[in-house]
Amino acid sequence: MPFDPETLRYDARGLIPAIAQEAETGEVLMMAWMNAEAVRRTLKTGRVTYWSRSRQAFWVKGESSGNVQELVEMRVDCDRDTLLLLVRQTGPACHTLRRTCFYTAIRDGEEVVLMEPEAST
Amino acid sequence: MPFDPETLRYDARGLIPAIAQEAETGEVLMMAWMNAEAVRRTLKTGRVTYWSRSRQAFWVKGESSGNVQELVEMRVDCDRDTLLLLVRQTGPACHTLRRTCFYTAIRDGEEVVLMEPEAST
Repeated sequence: MPFDPETLRYDARGLIPAIAQEAETGEVLMMAWMNAEAVRRTLKTGRVTYWSRSRQAFWVKGESSGNVQELVEMRVDCDRDTLLLLVRQTGPACHTLRRTCFYTAIRDGEEVVLMEPEAST
Repeated sequence: MPFDPETLRYDARGLIPAIAQEAETGEVLMMAWMNAEAVRRTLKTGRVTYWSRSRQAFWVKGESSGNVQELVEMRVDCDRDTLLLLVRQTGPACHTLRRTCFYTAIRDGEEVVLMEPEAST
């Protein structure tokens, strides 16, 4: 069946959450939002493109930092209201310069930071 | 630092997205929503508990199906507005009886179903 981004279920703002997962390691890197046009651009260009809620603008991941996400495969969930992006991430995915945004664990009721920022190149 | 669920950033409905990932294999299973009390219950009981938007009720994953999610570790992202749950999933995570909800891939513009429902036990 041909895929049409309009058939996804977007929220009231016209957005759908997209989870980025490193294709090789399986590490979950981040979650951000897309609108239908961001889905279309990501599939067309192979460069993961989100919709920035704060800037109200398209956000080609890594466009300014160089830490791009190359799309390996897009997946849709059963309810068609969440996307999973298998990606090849260049450099750290997180704006804190950590490999993943999910670097804080809850252990025995305490917040534990699991990794430090990577050295900038 | 002690973890307080109230310090997370919830949306206008008081909800935060929670991504469930199989701890051993790294497979992303599903995404659902929690409110602060669901976060608290999940940490306290070790049984992943979401907030059902359709039923407007707590939803202890697998309570009726038996396909429970045992929490291995909860992680918080840099913006404190998304959770990653490392879990041990019993049976299929998806209500379609597939292992994961993300069983549809977009390949060359077509939707491709990657896996079939598991045989019920």
